[in-house]
Amino acid sequence: MNSENELLILGCGSATPTSNRFPTSQVLRMRDQLFLVDCGEGAQIQMRRNHVKFGQIDHIFISHLHGDHYFGLIGLLSSLHLLDRRKTLVLFGPPELWSLLEIQFRASGTRLKYEIDFRPLRPNTEEVLLDTKKIKVESLVMKHSIDTWGFLFTEKSKPRNLIKSKIEEYNIPRYVRDQIKDGGDLTRDDGTIIPNSELTTAPPPIKSYAYFSDTAYRPENIEKVSGADLMYHETTFTDGDRDKAEKTLHSTTLQAATMASKAKVKKLVIGHFSARYDDASELVNEAKSIFEATEGANEGARYIF
Amino acid sequence: MNSENELLILGCGSATPTSNRFPTSQVLRMRDQLFLVDCGEGAQIQMRRNHVKFGQIDHIFISHLHGDHYFGLIGLLSSLHLLDRRKTLVLFGPPELWSLLEIQFRASGTRLKYEIDFRPLRPNTEEVLLDTKKIKVESLVMKHSIDTWGFLFTEKSKPRNLIKSKIEEYNIPRYVRDQIKDGGDLTRDDGTIIPNSELTTAPPPIKSYAYFSDTAYRPENIEKVSGADLMYHETTFTDGDRDKAEKTLHSTTLQAATMASKAKVKKLVIGHFSARYDDASELVNEAKSIFEATEGANEGARYIF
Repeated sequence: MNSENELLILGCGSATPTSNRFPTSQVLRMRDQLFLVDCGEGAQIQMRRNHVKFGQIDHIFISHLHGDHYFGLIGLLSSLHLLDRRKTLVLFGPPELWSLLEIQFRASGTRLKYEIDFRPLRPNTEEVLLDTKKIKVESLVMKHSIDTWGFLFTEKSKPRNLIKSKIEEYNIPRYVRDQIKDGGDLTRDDGTIIPNSELTTAPPPIKSYAYFSDTAYRPENIEKVSGADLMYHETTFTDGDRDKAEKTLHSTTLQAATMASKAKVKKLVIGHFSARYDDASELVNEAKSIFEATEGANEGARYIF
Repeated sequence: MNSENELLILGCGSATPTSNRFPTSQVLRMRDQLFLVDCGEGAQIQMRRNHVKFGQIDHIFISHLHGDHYFGLIGLLSSLHLLDRRKTLVLFGPPELWSLLEIQFRASGTRLKYEIDFRPLRPNTEEVLLDTKKIKVESLVMKHSIDTWGFLFTEKSKPRNLIKSKIEEYNIPRYVRDQIKDGGDLTRDDGTIIPNSELTTAPPPIKSYAYFSDTAYRPENIEKVSGADLMYHETTFTDGDRDKAEKTLHSTTLQAATMASKAKVKKLVIGHFSARYDDASELVNEAKSIFEATEGANEGARYIF
């Protein structure tokens, strides 16, 4: 098991793809599970370039139905079919998404070899989407020109660290180690009990990742994502272009940074820059004036947390 | 004006795109007009890489609704909108295509800034799709698992070559030169008439391009494309895999080459190779055994004719 989590940016452009800028898509690895978050055109090309194994993705989250966030989905789903996938795929997305996909599969006469378990997101509702032993995923409400969601990924409690020297000292058999990592005491052959506190140290801290897809500034989300280890926040415009941000219901650098600052996240990654800016550095610098731990996203960038 | 025509391959893979293989899409330049033929995922990325100007494309032809031939279309049409296109775009495709596009535009709340003049192709029917002063485009009937069309692009008559020395000899004014190129005689100021045959030589020969998208061998097409200067023909399988070709209604190397040979085309380009072949050379060599002037397509390849 890899104890670190990682966010891989497949694309962080806004709108039209170019030869090296891809629209929004990212792969989150958390507790050794892969989650695909949005799927702009070319996402599958970027997955191959970045050595993401298609078969390891069992959950896809689509934030909204603007094309730069989902036009690559039908191609990816078709490829999984051609690659002979048999495992069920869980797909979260806006309710209308399913009919958009179905009509295209029907037109091509495709009967998928695998099941898609489509779970429609509920408009204007924060809800728990996934709750497994290791991870909880919740939806966030964005403020955009069509129904749009963000996502909050949070680790569940982790196993405690078993102290190596204690394994030797008490000759702890392999089959009880997981129990002890889960907080149990050790009962020795002679009946004596060694309390868990003597055998383990506290587990590594719980990590979380907050994804803000396309949204105007919405302070109601601050508390929800408070303390997140990593936040991705769209930052389409500079502060000077805040009238454009208002009109299109996008965020400026200062708004994204304010969100990160007020939510006291550990790191902010910004992307989805409008094509009007040749260079992301201006946007990153503006954001840093409010929230120092800001980075500008790039295709292929990886963030460990 | 550029008197040469050119076929640019944007993608010639079958099915799933990879980091350097793109699904089917090509740009035909004929008589200085650009035609986009099929539009697999990533076509717009490939257009940028190959310096094709988006605004110069006024006609798109979609051969059928298997995803590897059209999944890039919705993204391209959206980009044209974002790039502020105002000119009408003429789109030829299977009748169901329009509803697939409309439902996606509706879901994103997009009202296109330009008009799409959608012209549904008629199943199992050869017809003239476009007939301008310079070019005629006709549909071809393919034999595939869903309704599928090919396309035949033919130049219309070209202007005759005006002999340079005659321009000087008779001091032919600029404004009558086009008339003479179109076959007219020259009436001089003193009333004498110089016949066209003395002033011009025959125009360059009429060129044509035949596109066979996805199809089993269908000899009925031979006569239709007879003498084409360039033929692109899908060649998904080797002769050894002809059972797979039969089952999936695709062509083998020998079938594509037979079509080229019987139609007496000048050059054959093959593509759409199944991912089972690491190397296209085997397929090209097989085709050459029947039709020597065969080339294997590659992303970015250009064929002048």
